[in-house]
Amino acid sequence: MSAKQERLILVANDDGIFSKGIRALVEVAERFGRVIVVAPDRQQSAVGHSITISEPLRTQKFEMKEGVTAISVNGTPADCVKLATDQLLKEKPDLVLSGINHGSNAGINIIYSGTVSAATEGTILGYPSIAVSCMDFAEDADLSGAQEAAARAVQFVFDNGLPKGITLNVNAPAGPFKRMRWARQGDSRYTDEYVARVDPVNRPYYWMFGRLEVLDEADDVDINVLKSGYASITPIQYDLTAYKVFEAMSGMDV
Amino acid sequence: MSAKQERLILVANDDGIFSKGIRALVEVAERFGRVIVVAPDRQQSAVGHSITISEPLRTQKFEMKEGVTAISVNGTPADCVKLATDQLLKEKPDLVLSGINHGSNAGINIIYSGTVSAATEGTILGYPSIAVSCMDFAEDADLSGAQEAAARAVQFVFDNGLPKGITLNVNAPAGPFKRMRWARQGDSRYTDEYVARVDPVNRPYYWMFGRLEVLDEADDVDINVLKSGYASITPIQYDLTAYKVFEAMSGMDV
Repeated sequence: MSAKQERLILVANDDGIFSKGIRALVEVAERFGRVIVVAPDRQQSAVGHSITISEPLRTQKFEMKEGVTAISVNGTPADCVKLATDQLLKEKPDLVLSGINHGSNAGINIIYSGTVSAATEGTILGYPSIAVSCMDFAEDADLSGAQEAAARAVQFVFDNGLPKGITLNVNAPAGPFKRMRWARQGDSRYTDEYVARVDPVNRPYYWMFGRLEVLDEADDVDINVLKSGYASITPIQYDLTAYKVFEAMSGMDV
Repeated sequence: MSAKQERLILVANDDGIFSKGIRALVEVAERFGRVIVVAPDRQQSAVGHSITISEPLRTQKFEMKEGVTAISVNGTPADCVKLATDQLLKEKPDLVLSGINHGSNAGINIIYSGTVSAATEGTILGYPSIAVSCMDFAEDADLSGAQEAAARAVQFVFDNGLPKGITLNVNAPAGPFKRMRWARQGDSRYTDEYVARVDPVNRPYYWMFGRLEVLDEADDVDINVLKSGYASITPIQYDLTAYKVFEAMSGMDV
């Protein structure tokens, strides 16, 4: 068998198994190996690294296209990767791909992203993992550039491997991009976060609708790389220890 | 007014506003300032950094104890901190406290923790923030040690401040502890994650029930510090960029 025939690629996402983005990522994955899809049965955006522990998970299998089995899960993106590798797959995947997300996952959005969490979960479990997002929220977004960026990131990982504990987070503008650039996570936050209204029986409710405020003007951070028309690629880690601060504080009494 | 009277402390958690742990943390917070509680209306463990964007949030206000207003939210821990600071509080808090969680949030559990996410959200929004957890899952856990650890961490923050972007993650054993120790996030992961069963009408389901495998034997990581009878305190950050890898890869073609 060729390397391509031997490889198994697990594809997940957070927009749900029926999104356009996951089909676009499956097309990319098929160039590199056999593909199986395990993804949420519905939209799961902004779930962060949520996992389901108080309820049972159910699955449904179907043929997404010729040669590609898909299994939907009534859970989160991280659940999908956990359940796939622990129970659903007969062999271990050589790569976990998550996306293509409709909407970028750059700056602080990395923290809230279900797309990134599926890839991070793959990394935690020991598999090379990549998250891919496109800067366009539209359901019919032009994902051609994001597909190209995904393919380049996958080739990079198969050529070079990934250090332990590292996930690649890839973002692309809608449509074509200039080239790929390595980027840092840009500092940013949401402001004016909620719209406060009253419902038809006059009870108040709050609905999230924040504006992203970019605090980081450096041109090598993901948000600014994207704005300049490049695709960004960022190595991220799940060890959250702030090592410099840890070393500085270690001598202090508490 | 004294510093204590001037300070406002926001208390949140992920076990829900009626848990024993949040009342224990309110007792600690009252020693340092005025206290307001904004927390989920139900158990929200393992939600990670989930936020609610597709549904409206509702609130209910009640008096938790004399002088302490509590507002429950039908959302996640991170929602509570966002909504509190954007809409519910009349003034900005001087500190965000999250916990006391019933169950430790050390090692990989930091990634899945709603308790930690509430504190991280506080940090993102620019407030000094601390998460506090106790190594005992029991509803009637002895939280006296965790209260002591929380008080020490709060005093540390009011004495020294916290660098931008840094959250303190505090864990304590049940009952008394030897002393507090600075610790790193320990590398760990869950194995044998799911129990597969069939329901009364013979359909399969999967239920998460993993064993935590500790991959890190160093005595300065949070999990091992706790096992040795100390309380752990770990500075964590929401910038997930793997800087060393970023620098190493920046010269590589992709």
